[in-house]
Amino acid sequence: MVYVSRKEHFNAAHRLYNPAWSEEKNKEVFGPCANMNWHGHNFELIVTVKGEPNPDTGFVIDLKVLGDIIKREIIDKVDHKNLNLDVDFMMGKMASCEIFIVEIWKILNKALEAVTEARLYRLRLYETPKNYVDYYGE
Amino acid sequence: MVYVSRKEHFNAAHRLYNPAWSEEKNKEVFGPCANMNWHGHNFELIVTVKGEPNPDTGFVIDLKVLGDIIKREIIDKVDHKNLNLDVDFMMGKMASCEIFIVEIWKILNKALEAVTEARLYRLRLYETPKNYVDYYGE
Amino acid sequence: MVYVSRKEHFNAAHRLYNPAWSEEKNKEVFGPCANMNWHGHNFELIVTVKGEPNPDTGFVIDLKVLGDIIKREIIDKVDHKNLNLDVDFMMGKMASCEIFIVEIWKILNKALEAVTEARLYRLRLYETPKNYVDYYGE
Amino acid sequence: MVYVSRKEHFNAAHRLYNPAWSEEKNKEVFGPCANMNWHGHNFELIVTVKGEPNPDTGFVIDLKVLGDIIKREIIDKVDHKNLNLDVDFMMGKMASCEIFIVEIWKILNKALEAVTEARLYRLRLYETPKNYVDYYGE
Amino acid sequence: MVYVSRKEHFNAAHRLYNPAWSEEKNKEVFGPCANMNWHGHNFELIVTVKGEPNPDTGFVIDLKVLGDIIKREIIDKVDHKNLNLDVDFMMGKMASCEIFIVEIWKILNKALEAVTEARLYRLRLYETPKNYVDYYGE
Amino acid sequence: MVYVSRKEHFNAAHRLYNPAWSEEKNKEVFGPCANMNWHGHNFELIVTVKGEPNPDTGFVIDLKVLGDIIKREIIDKVDHKNLNLDVDFMMGKMASCEIFIVEIWKILNKALEAVTEARLYRLRLYETPKNYVDYYGE
Repeated sequence: MVYVSRKEHFNAAHRLYNPAWSEEKNKEVFGPCANMNWHGHNFELIVTVKGEPNPDTGFVIDLKVLGDIIKREIIDKVDHKNLNLDVDFMMGKMASCEIFIVEIWKILNKALEAVTEARLYRLRLYETPKNYVDYYGE
Repeated sequence: MVYVSRKEHFNAAHRLYNPAWSEEKNKEVFGPCANMNWHGHNFELIVTVKGEPNPDTGFVIDLKVLGDIIKREIIDKVDHKNLNLDVDFMMGKMASCEIFIVEIWKILNKALEAVTEARLYRLRLYETPKNYVDYYGE
Repeated sequence: MVYVSRKEHFNAAHRLYNPAWSEEKNKEVFGPCANMNWHGHNFELIVTVKGEPNPDTGFVIDLKVLGDIIKREIIDKVDHKNLNLDVDFMMGKMASCEIFIVEIWKILNKALEAVTEARLYRLRLYETPKNYVDYYGE
Repeated sequence: MVYVSRKEHFNAAHRLYNPAWSEEKNKEVFGPCANMNWHGHNFELIVTVKGEPNPDTGFVIDLKVLGDIIKREIIDKVDHKNLNLDVDFMMGKMASCEIFIVEIWKILNKALEAVTEARLYRLRLYETPKNYVDYYGE
Repeated sequence: MVYVSRKEHFNAAHRLYNPAWSEEKNKEVFGPCANMNWHGHNFELIVTVKGEPNPDTGFVIDLKVLGDIIKREIIDKVDHKNLNLDVDFMMGKMASCEIFIVEIWKILNKALEAVTEARLYRLRLYETPKNYVDYYGE
Repeated sequence: MVYVSRKEHFNAAHRLYNPAWSEEKNKEVFGPCANMNWHGHNFELIVTVKGEPNPDTGFVIDLKVLGDIIKREIIDKVDHKNLNLDVDFMMGKMASCEIFIVEIWKILNKALEAVTEARLYRLRLYETPKNYVDYYGE
């Protein structure tokens, strides 16, 4: 069983904001992250799949295929976008990294199951060089 | 003459947008960077000053002083902000890195002249790990 | 279950040194790391906690809270310090990364249990860009 | 149980190529990676061993010993080499990262068992900053 | 005058080799870099142009245009290639970084002069994270 | 004229401290950097030489030769050392980066003049990822 990882990059705006709360309460809880005019990040997404290498190719998964799936399913929908306003799969959800990574998992897991026997193992999402989240699907 | 550099970090949203143009022309020229709902970046700002080391301290400039000036004059005004909407010194200006770095220079140059004989030599602003701009004040 | 990580930085001096041994034996075993006049590093500490995202905030833990705990409990005690001479929780212990990370775990684990349901999952400590240790609390 | 990691670097040429296939089929499956005149990478190999710290040294394993084993057993055999033509333990095997990392495991695992009670836990091999593989020996 | 930089990545094989010398003399002078079966690198190319920002766009040069030129003129010709065998503009030349960067300058300088008033200012080419060369066109 | 750069790494302890001042004044001016028990860093030294590539080798300078000179003249004297106590060329001098880099220049400039026509162009010394100094010899 070998684990294969691919890193992709996107730039997006977001805001931490609970619509059930007042603007004041949002500022109290989220601080500058609640800025109503948004802020943004250079996000890095690392996708890890696991499987047995194919004896003919030596590949667990063709990294070009994996990269194309990540780009089509995720990067094209979030790059140079506003996570709260522009991204259909985030509509009505908190735009925290924790919630965001779980939604990304659902999409990538389904897309990968359709094309490969390799299984999605882990997602890692860097919001800044100092802050990141991991999700293993459970 | 020794050159001393300090790196600081901030996260901001912006949009490339010329208000004299239609939304269509903005999209044509700026592509996804014109997204009306904004996008954002983890910016890195590297400030370089030059001068002769003080014989008593061995310093061209105390890096704590330099860091405090950068934070007070720039980072506090742009971190977790929207460069187009929230930053007074960018009002009415294109929010490109080229324009932004020239405005940062004006502020830091003035603030440094007030407290040190060391001269501002160069600013470097990373918008992404692949794209950055430099400005030497002329 | 989402895993949230925060990286912090500190600079410290240390020496690998077993007081039960002669200076010669220390040099033989630890080589230049036994230098009696110390050497030092830019350490990076990555703290990972795991938990379920809070539905109101989208957070496993507020990263500002996590960062403040790391700074108050660890960074303030070790930054610009000598690990062998200045750090109370390292007194009488080998200043290797392996021993150091276990002591950091004890302190952070206790501090986190007092304020959050999220559990400390992993510590990673970089001594140099080429050398690091991990500890999972067991 | 503490996990200790060491990173080493090497530069090598390789080609993805299945000798049972025609040059056309190789190009179709492997794309530019099948270039018959080779291409190459700056590989990074991160070796993680786990064990209990020795009470006399504070070490799970002396990193100098670990580094020397990695250099003698792997780096000296692959650095500035062609993985398909020059490396005895890759002869007749696909030069994909997945196959390569499993072969490296076999060698390092045996070499470490001969000198330490610490156990090889994980190998990570970066082919580019965007692509890497992990192997845990099973 | 603002300086705008763009980083691009490519993977290539090469060999340091003077055809006027014997294989032995090549090995003596170039060491493992003379390996007749090639080795390779993940190269990073940073292209810096300088100019006055256009008042309508805020750009010295559209980074998408700059990136496209670098890809079409250089990356497409060298990525996953052998610098000694596959790259027309390196035929009959030493494949050292010093010679390579001068040849890249000639091509990019000409391509940029055809489309922009911004001037090529500097090329930086990383062969490894420890080794790089710069060229300013003179 | 091509500029060739080589990066080397060392770990050292130091203290910012003016012996003409009281311990209190040292603390006031240098803050935690004056800690009498020392602190330390992972320093990175980047050495840039400039010259015309030799037509037979394609080299401005053999990077192995450059690396060996840096190691013999500087790294061996400062790695795992205390800059204030162990380094002969820093005796009686402030151990700030500004003073340190000027002393490194004197040594490397002399050593390079003895073996190459390439000229030392710039030194860059990173004390932390956020702080570095440059020196051009004048």
